[in-house]
Amino acid sequence: MPNSVVDLQAKLDLFSEHWSPKRVAQLNDYDIKVVKLQGEFVWHSHDDTDELFLVIAGQLTIQLRDRDVHLGPGQLYVVPKGVEHCPRADEEVHALLMEPAGVVNTGDAGGELTATVEDI
Amino acid sequence: MPNSVVDLQAKLDLFSEHWSPKRVAQLNDYDIKVVKLQGEFVWHSHDDTDELFLVIAGQLTIQLRDRDVHLGPGQLYVVPKGVEHCPRADEEVHALLMEPAGVVNTGDAGGELTATVEDI
Repeated sequence: MPNSVVDLQAKLDLFSEHWSPKRVAQLNDYDIKVVKLQGEFVWHSHDDTDELFLVIAGQLTIQLRDRDVHLGPGQLYVVPKGVEHCPRADEEVHALLMEPAGVVNTGDAGGELTATVEDI
Repeated sequence: MPNSVVDLQAKLDLFSEHWSPKRVAQLNDYDIKVVKLQGEFVWHSHDDTDELFLVIAGQLTIQLRDRDVHLGPGQLYVVPKGVEHCPRADEEVHALLMEPAGVVNTGDAGGELTATVEDI
């Protein structure tokens, strides 16, 4: 089946829940996802992969153990594999995520915020 | 060395040449690049990998053999591996590209538009 054009805002308009990434495209064995974030996530790391955050709207803080990374619209950050991080959004943030398919959002932490990735 | 925040517009402000992707980040063995496009590229394909285009500014047409794909700001398209394509931008386009490190921009076509990817 041929790929379709993905309009990120149109995809974001389809859901409202937070911390639940939705897959909008696949690039080889990587997932391209959009997510809405508000509040504080859980501290976790991904031992086997880097993770890319690109902010589309809002102000995102990615807390690391030794500093905070601040991202606004049009800014991206790659969390290196194995690095503990905890995203925080005081107001709602819309972001694009890119990471290998099958990565669990809560990494090594697990818990109630663990989400199943759906296509949207 | 810890990763840095990447501001896409600030990176785009650093160069003016067209069809010469600049790497702004790495995600595992993938490159995240920004590029300025104007005019028509060459028809080519990448036999081993998909290629993601996310338009930041302007209107991009990705010509395929059977149709044209039109992308505006905030829209992305993944060209499947092996699919011949030829990007065209009647006015300047700024875009983000994601693909495995080492992919040659002109794919199987080669020629004078073949660019070496620099970090920026």
